[in-house]
Amino acid sequence: MSDSEVVKKGKLAKAASRQLAVTSTKVKNYALERMAEALDKNAKIILDANSLDLEAGEKKELSRALLDRLSLDGKRISGMIEGIQVIKSLPDPVGEIISEWQRPNGLKIKKVRVPLGVIGIIYEARPNVTVDSAALCLKAGNAVILRGGSDVIQTNIEITKVIQDAAYNAGLPENSIQLIADTRRETAEELMRARDYVDVLIPRGGRSLIQAVVENSTIPVIETGEGNCHAYVERTADLKMAADIVFNAKCSRPSVCNAIENLLVDDAIAAEFLPLVKQRLDEGHVQLRGSERVRKILPGIKLATEEDWRTEFLALILAVNTVAGVDDAINHINKYGTKHSETIITRDKNAAQKFQAEIDAAVVYVNASTRFTDGFEFGFGAEIGISTQKLHARGPMGLNELTSYKYLVDGSGQIRV
Amino acid sequence: MSDSEVVKKGKLAKAASRQLAVTSTKVKNYALERMAEALDKNAKIILDANSLDLEAGEKKELSRALLDRLSLDGKRISGMIEGIQVIKSLPDPVGEIISEWQRPNGLKIKKVRVPLGVIGIIYEARPNVTVDSAALCLKAGNAVILRGGSDVIQTNIEITKVIQDAAYNAGLPENSIQLIADTRRETAEELMRARDYVDVLIPRGGRSLIQAVVENSTIPVIETGEGNCHAYVERTADLKMAADIVFNAKCSRPSVCNAIENLLVDDAIAAEFLPLVKQRLDEGHVQLRGSERVRKILPGIKLATEEDWRTEFLALILAVNTVAGVDDAINHINKYGTKHSETIITRDKNAAQKFQAEIDAAVVYVNASTRFTDGFEFGFGAEIGISTQKLHARGPMGLNELTSYKYLVDGSGQIRV
Repeated sequence: MSDSEVVKKGKLAKAASRQLAVTSTKVKNYALERMAEALDKNAKIILDANSLDLEAGEKKELSRALLDRLSLDGKRISGMIEGIQVIKSLPDPVGEIISEWQRPNGLKIKKVRVPLGVIGIIYEARPNVTVDSAALCLKAGNAVILRGGSDVIQTNIEITKVIQDAAYNAGLPENSIQLIADTRRETAEELMRARDYVDVLIPRGGRSLIQAVVENSTIPVIETGEGNCHAYVERTADLKMAADIVFNAKCSRPSVCNAIENLLVDDAIAAEFLPLVKQRLDEGHVQLRGSERVRKILPGIKLATEEDWRTEFLALILAVNTVAGVDDAINHINKYGTKHSETIITRDKNAAQKFQAEIDAAVVYVNASTRFTDGFEFGFGAEIGISTQKLHARGPMGLNELTSYKYLVDGSGQIRV
Repeated sequence: MSDSEVVKKGKLAKAASRQLAVTSTKVKNYALERMAEALDKNAKIILDANSLDLEAGEKKELSRALLDRLSLDGKRISGMIEGIQVIKSLPDPVGEIISEWQRPNGLKIKKVRVPLGVIGIIYEARPNVTVDSAALCLKAGNAVILRGGSDVIQTNIEITKVIQDAAYNAGLPENSIQLIADTRRETAEELMRARDYVDVLIPRGGRSLIQAVVENSTIPVIETGEGNCHAYVERTADLKMAADIVFNAKCSRPSVCNAIENLLVDDAIAAEFLPLVKQRLDEGHVQLRGSERVRKILPGIKLATEEDWRTEFLALILAVNTVAGVDDAINHINKYGTKHSETIITRDKNAAQKFQAEIDAAVVYVNASTRFTDGFEFGFGAEIGISTQKLHARGPMGLNELTSYKYLVDGSGQIRV
């Protein structure tokens, strides 16, 4: 029986990853440079393929929002090119000596940063993920197997051809970048179980995609992205600052995972703060959903349901509750949150410290917007996603988070007695 | 419907983990001290329970080897007590500031080490794993849910009661340590899918246990232990040193994962080295299985099958092959190895460097026995296992590997523009 597409590409990726692990920074950067050039040169071919996907999408009556996510234009291609150039400019994490020590028996132990090997990326509509993921994985010395959605397959095929050829011609191993062309679900599921060839899977997309990968994968997964984030306005807060932060965290980009979905307000200041913040949020056209207590202060807003406390709206909706104090706020957030990003607005150092210590989330802020949870804003230069799990990587994942390590031990004949 | 045992204990563990995360080193160490004392004081109760397990095991006609693994005596209990004391003496990893920096907008970012949360341990016969896992998890601030095998359940129930009470009386949160008493497979499978309550699963046992966990778990898993390790004797090796290392790596403790199962010898020195090493291994009663080429030099040994190259014998059996040189050795090991521990014996620095760079394994040795892959031998003071995966932790896992991190960000009203 001949190999399936997944097995065939898995084997090739494994072989490529062995060579990539020992490829110099210079060659990797040169390949990134050539990939950027090739995207520029072949923009028309890519845009033509994208038109085919868009036509098909309109026939399938995809939503406007989805069609927008999968459509490309010159500006979006320029964005991809700039992304590659940023990744090229970042330091190469591979080969870093993380620590080293000598044992009493003379053994010298070095802990050295190495690539993860083969990374599988399972994603949905946005074709920039194709370029972005490939560039990040390559820079960290990994081979990548891409599995994008069916709605954008023609575009992805063309993009992959273009960057694949450029990388190979620049001296990277063949098959460093591969795309699974078969977009049936069975093929994605086969990839999720290809333990012999894939070291890590990173799903990039909405909740249902991530859940499907977590349920079906036997390969280690890094979960990214689900963000049911909260702002908690403590009783000593500067209320003007609090309103600014809440407005920014909700309205500056409501469709992203680091936007807030919930506002918790200390009982003691609720009567003063809620009308103030409502005025700001009204300007942003935010629909509020409140508890009974909140509705006593803000009559006319919708009643929040239990489900609302759990929901990542990704829209101009904000669920609002009052809490008795910092302990109550911590309990609410640890119960309903997704361990992404949480913020307290306060002037009380003890409350701030308690909040940061006891909240179980990737990033815990004091007096700042949750919108800063982002590889660029953290200074990592790039990111492949925001991890909401606690194993391996937490929060914004940059190049370091796409690596593992190994121990190199040098002896002079030591045996264990 | 009332909660199942797994859900009930999962909820309690989650609650305990929140408190444990902010419990001081002093209280954790005091609890460990009291757990050690309690084991000493209650040794008889534990040994009585163990007798019941042994009787039941004899009725079920368990093998001698298995009965030995699950049996306890005063010496083994002392070993557990010493293990706890070692863990007590180790530095507490929680709260360490891994890195900190300030962004141009004034945000101060701190990356701080925190516990993983709730750790599930799924294991088999050896009751010392109960004590050892609980102590390691607690010291790193984690709540633990233990799920041992049915053959040793009475012993595990008594041990857990003893250390649970001691920990609680010393001031640790109730339910920091819990045992799943129901040993049916369905219950283990429920635990493997208890994503709402368990942050990480660590299977400790043989290949089939680990495979079952990897196949069924939707919780992140750290795979431990499978070791198909190789020694490669390069042509410039000091042959006396090579024979000593091979003998040590095979014979000093053949049943453990860091013992070698395969010997690769450079063609150029095969005729000289193979008879020499066979003489040493004969003293250790090692059965050799060789390729055709090896059998020309060592007539009378068994022919190695393809299956032998893949097998972790965990016994006094060694598969022997010749290779054309370092590249051939690397290919063989990367094809058949389990990414655990590999060693090259050589005087050639380039060969050593190439081997360390290109072998994909947790620990790569030059001129030393693979038997050193162990938390104690690495200087970690303790270990919960040897990870053979690349995500999160690789090689010996000590207390640090039972932690995650979070980012604490301090601002003064920053919003994202």
